[in-house]
Amino acid sequence: MEIAVHIPLSEAQKHRLSAGAPGTTFRYLARDEPSDAPVVFGNPTPAAVAANPRLRWLQLGSVGFGEYLPLDWRRPQGTAVVTNLAGFFADPVAETALAGILALCRGIDRLGDLRRARRWVGDAIRAEITTLSGESVVLFGRGAINGRLADLLVPFGCAIASFGRDWTAPALDRALAQAGVVVATVPHTPLTENLFDAARIARMRPGAIFCNLGRGSLVEEAALAAALESGRLGGALIDVTRDEPPAADHPFWTTPNTILTQHSGGGTRDEVDRKIDWFLDNLRQFRQGGPLRGEISLDRGY
Amino acid sequence: MEIAVHIPLSEAQKHRLSAGAPGTTFRYLARDEPSDAPVVFGNPTPAAVAANPRLRWLQLGSVGFGEYLPLDWRRPQGTAVVTNLAGFFADPVAETALAGILALCRGIDRLGDLRRARRWVGDAIRAEITTLSGESVVLFGRGAINGRLADLLVPFGCAIASFGRDWTAPALDRALAQAGVVVATVPHTPLTENLFDAARIARMRPGAIFCNLGRGSLVEEAALAAALESGRLGGALIDVTRDEPPAADHPFWTTPNTILTQHSGGGTRDEVDRKIDWFLDNLRQFRQGGPLRGEISLDRGY
Repeated sequence: MEIAVHIPLSEAQKHRLSAGAPGTTFRYLARDEPSDAPVVFGNPTPAAVAANPRLRWLQLGSVGFGEYLPLDWRRPQGTAVVTNLAGFFADPVAETALAGILALCRGIDRLGDLRRARRWVGDAIRAEITTLSGESVVLFGRGAINGRLADLLVPFGCAIASFGRDWTAPALDRALAQAGVVVATVPHTPLTENLFDAARIARMRPGAIFCNLGRGSLVEEAALAAALESGRLGGALIDVTRDEPPAADHPFWTTPNTILTQHSGGGTRDEVDRKIDWFLDNLRQFRQGGPLRGEISLDRGY
Repeated sequence: MEIAVHIPLSEAQKHRLSAGAPGTTFRYLARDEPSDAPVVFGNPTPAAVAANPRLRWLQLGSVGFGEYLPLDWRRPQGTAVVTNLAGFFADPVAETALAGILALCRGIDRLGDLRRARRWVGDAIRAEITTLSGESVVLFGRGAINGRLADLLVPFGCAIASFGRDWTAPALDRALAQAGVVVATVPHTPLTENLFDAARIARMRPGAIFCNLGRGSLVEEAALAAALESGRLGGALIDVTRDEPPAADHPFWTTPNTILTQHSGGGTRDEVDRKIDWFLDNLRQFRQGGPLRGEISLDRGY
C-alpha cells in the first residue's frame, strides 16, 4: 500500500514510521503536492485532498480541521474517512495548566524575577504564597484537557465546578464568585467570543487565578490586563492570545503575576514521534477494518 | 489557665487564638522572657524554658528543635511534654516540589525569561519541553513531604523509587541512573553530608531534574552547578543552599534551568493561622488528657 505523508519528518522519524508498517511505501510530499494515495497522513492543502480520487482515509496531524470542512469526501469507491488528533494534546496542556497554577500559587514566577536580580528576600516571600490544596476550581470546558486536569487535581482535594456545553451564565457566574482558580479550555464560537469581559472578570473572586488554554477570543484582554495590574486578580496563565505573537506593546508582556506560555501548552519534545505512533495504531485498525481513533463527524463539524 | 505565647502575632491572630480557647489567659512574650505558665506556645529561648518551674507542655512553632535537646524537662509535678509541627510543612513543600518539577518540564521558567525580553519564540519552545506523565521518579527521604508528593504524583503514573532510612548507595545509584526526576528531602546527618557529590551526580540520567528540599549540605554545590551549566542535568529546583542567602557570586544565581526558591517551600500566606489552629487542636487534646500531635521523643532526638 502507498501512503502519502504531508508532515515534515527527520530521517529518524521516517525510520520510526517505516519500522512500524513493514511493506508499506511512504511518499513524503509538501502540503500542496497532490497524490492518489488511499491513505494520507498529515495536513495537505484542501486542494490537494480534493484532487485525490482514491482517498479512503486522511489522518490529520492536528486537532483542528476547519479548513477541510467545505470539501466533498465522496469518492468512486465510497466516502473517505477523516481522523484528527482529538485528545492528543490533553496530557501536555493539562500539565502546563497545573504547572502554571502551581507556579502562581507557590511564587515560582516571582522567585525567577528575584533570581534574575540576584535578590534574596527569604521569609518575606512566604507571606505572598499559598497552596492549591482544598481550593475551589472552575473548569470551563469539559473536553479532554480539563478531563485530564481534573484527574491531576484529585489529590489536591479541590472543590471542582465543571461546565460543558450545557453551561449557563448565571451558574457560571455563581461559581466564578467562589473560585480561587478558573481554567478555560473552550473553543472559539459565537457564544464564547468575549465571554470573559470586564463585567464577568469583575464578578470573579478577588485574588483568583485565571487560566486560558482554549482560544484568545474568549477574553477581553484589556479588562484582564487591568484586573492583573490592579491586583484584583491574583494571577493569570495565558497560553492563547488574540494575536500570536501579541503586539510589542501588548499588556500581557508586562502585567504582574502573568505566565505567558506562547501557545506551547500542547508541545512536547517527542510530539512528532507520538503523532507517528498514533497514526501507526490507527493504520493497524484501518487494515483490520476496526474503528479509528479520532474519527470526525463532518456533518456536526466536530 | 495561663498560656505563654512566644510567637509574634497580629491583633487578628491574637483574636483567632483567644476565640479558639475561651476562658484562657494568653500572655504575649518575647523569646527570652521567662514565664511560669504551664503551657507555652512558640519558641522561647532554651534559657526561658529552663527557668519555667511549672512547665507541663511546650508546643513549638517549628519542626526543628535542636536547640532544646540539651535541656532537662523534669519538673516537680512531672516531666514536661514537647510537641513540634511535624508534617505541618508537608503540603506546601510538596506543592513547591511539584510546581518546580512541572515548571522545568513545561518550560515555565524559560517562558518567563522570554516574556521579560518580550521575545516570542512560539513553536520553537515545543522542542524543548516534555511531560511528567510516566516519568521515573526517585524520592530520597520517606517523611511527610515526599509522602505527600507521592500522593500528588499518583495521577501522573510515574514509576516511583522511594528511599527511607534503609537506603543503600548501590540501590540509590541504580535508581538514579534511571530517573528523570530526583527529589531529596533528607535532613542533615553525617551520612547525607555531601552525598550528592560530583561522582554521584555523574551517575544520574542525562537530562534529569534534581530537586533539593531538605538541607543544602546534601549537595556538592559546585558539582551540581557544573552539571547544570554543561546541560548534563536538565534542571534543578533548589529550596535549600549551604549558605542562606548564597553569596553574590554563587553559581545558582545564574545556572541554566534552575529554580531557586529561597527556602520558601514551607511557606504559605496563612502559615501563622494554621499554626494557631494546630496549637488549639492540641490544646483541646491536652485538656482532655488525649494524645498530642507531634510529640517529640527527646531520647531519640526526633
